[in-house]
Amino acid sequence: MGRNVKRFKAFLDKERKVVDKKISQALKFRKPDSLYGPGYYIIEGGGKRLRPLLVLLAVKASGGKLNLAYNAAAAVELLHNFTLVHDDIMDNADKRRNIQTVHKKYDTNTAILAGDSLLSIAYEYLLKDCNGSAKKVLGSFTKGLIEVCEGQSLDKEYELREQVTIDEYITMIKKKTAAMMEMCCIIGAVIGGADDKEIKNLASFGRNIGIAFQIQDDLLDITGAENDFGKVVGGDLLEGKKTFLFLKALEVSKGNDKTKLLDVIKNKGVKPELVQSYKDLYQNLNILGDAENEIKHYTNLALKSIKKLKDEKYRDFYALLADSLIKRRK
Amino acid sequence: MGRNVKRFKAFLDKERKVVDKKISQALKFRKPDSLYGPGYYIIEGGGKRLRPLLVLLAVKASGGKLNLAYNAAAAVELLHNFTLVHDDIMDNADKRRNIQTVHKKYDTNTAILAGDSLLSIAYEYLLKDCNGSAKKVLGSFTKGLIEVCEGQSLDKEYELREQVTIDEYITMIKKKTAAMMEMCCIIGAVIGGADDKEIKNLASFGRNIGIAFQIQDDLLDITGAENDFGKVVGGDLLEGKKTFLFLKALEVSKGNDKTKLLDVIKNKGVKPELVQSYKDLYQNLNILGDAENEIKHYTNLALKSIKKLKDEKYRDFYALLADSLIKRRK
Repeated sequence: MGRNVKRFKAFLDKERKVVDKKISQALKFRKPDSLYGPGYYIIEGGGKRLRPLLVLLAVKASGGKLNLAYNAAAAVELLHNFTLVHDDIMDNADKRRNIQTVHKKYDTNTAILAGDSLLSIAYEYLLKDCNGSAKKVLGSFTKGLIEVCEGQSLDKEYELREQVTIDEYITMIKKKTAAMMEMCCIIGAVIGGADDKEIKNLASFGRNIGIAFQIQDDLLDITGAENDFGKVVGGDLLEGKKTFLFLKALEVSKGNDKTKLLDVIKNKGVKPELVQSYKDLYQNLNILGDAENEIKHYTNLALKSIKKLKDEKYRDFYALLADSLIKRRK
Repeated sequence: MGRNVKRFKAFLDKERKVVDKKISQALKFRKPDSLYGPGYYIIEGGGKRLRPLLVLLAVKASGGKLNLAYNAAAAVELLHNFTLVHDDIMDNADKRRNIQTVHKKYDTNTAILAGDSLLSIAYEYLLKDCNGSAKKVLGSFTKGLIEVCEGQSLDKEYELREQVTIDEYITMIKKKTAAMMEMCCIIGAVIGGADDKEIKNLASFGRNIGIAFQIQDDLLDITGAENDFGKVVGGDLLEGKKTFLFLKALEVSKGNDKTKLLDVIKNKGVKPELVQSYKDLYQNLNILGDAENEIKHYTNLALKSIKKLKDEKYRDFYALLADSLIKRRK
């Protein structure tokens, strides 16, 4: 593993720069500014670029050439940012990546259209690559898009619903978060020339790491420091989101604790001044530990599915990626 | 021409039914209802289905088989409805096709997501066809989507701008309305196996009829009867849209008339009780006649470009289609 740690970091650093440049260029020179300015704003706001890196890593792990996949890598990041812009409207979110969300900086109408155009450019970029396998790549991308919409819809639906099971929650985040990471791995694998079995294994990595990622996101909403996290901490509580932590707390709580949790559903969210008391409640119920165990469970499933990769280097890379995601603060 | 009138009507009736069924099926059985219900609602609300018919007509005019194009025809109608749902939010429109707009019946968040999902299903359907020419068809579709976003952005930008020329207006509606009709003709032609010259001619028909269509739409906002039109009559005035009629009136007016028109810009729209007085002003300035001439001009350009079609039957069909659009009340 030793020397692969350094190699992995070098890979991340180098490819992130390539991706950053590509997506920046994708929007920089387009007109009108009223449309592409807000899109450029969110793209330039930064981000982990996790999804393009998942594409590129899958290409390399499949023995393919990165040059054939940079446009597709840009496409998945554009698609991701499309979902962020629209989700932030729906979730009434003020901050993202430590700066104002698009609809707060501009207005809702501008953000709707900016999101739409990010998606349109995503398809434009996707079409630049994937020559031999256009239908497979585009089909997978489109399936990811459809699922992301369905997942977001379930997420909003659950906010209003009294009863949501943890199974339903997992189904929801599979669509909302994991489907897109799965898609990134599939696209990379297809462009990289992987066979069906390799595609399946990489898809499984993406899906399971995606589930772990979302539960981690739920956890960071409680444990994160605002400056690291880049979003308003406790935002899920403010919006009354049925996160893993909330549902688990509801499952194990009794008496007054349960009543306090049911109040979140009744009041469709929590007042800012009460966020800390809910954090304390989660702590007392040991919900943070439950969430960490769940994250580990899905991370292990992800790692299991890449054990069959031929190249030790990329097995290490995936392990390092999984590790960095578990330890992330944002 | 004689017997082709009947044939054309039969073609329209038959194909509209096929398209209606297809797009209805595209959404009917999907879950969750919270996402697809609103999409189904707008799709079932009816519509001319002009864009799918443009696809199918281009397939036939190119000597192709309709069976290869029904999914693509469904795709362009789904794309069109995506734009309607999002545009209605941005334009603050209450009615469409004589029923409540999606964001009024549900809410803005639901409408944003319903629109996104209509677009995602559009790509899913598009990918079902266009086997041999996936990249060409998808590229054209995506270009149409990008232009539609740009056009809508310009339209919103112009609402706030003091000075807009008629040339700028034409550029805007080329993107907002004509690009998609052009795209429908190109997709149909490509699927139908047309050569480059035929594609170019059909594209030109779509583009020019699209420009005529939009000016006609501007005109119907003033002359239409609400029950026919299906939208709130005078809605463009209420929103302070820089339509062809408004810009033309501004160009030819003087003195008090000009001041009255400049008030629309200053006040970012017109109060409902003043709509009639602006209609009267347009009438006095003979703006309606100017608009009709402009519509005829672009319709003639459209007709000119289909004169080179080999098959007389389809030359007639296109002429009949153009005629029906000029005479439309909705």
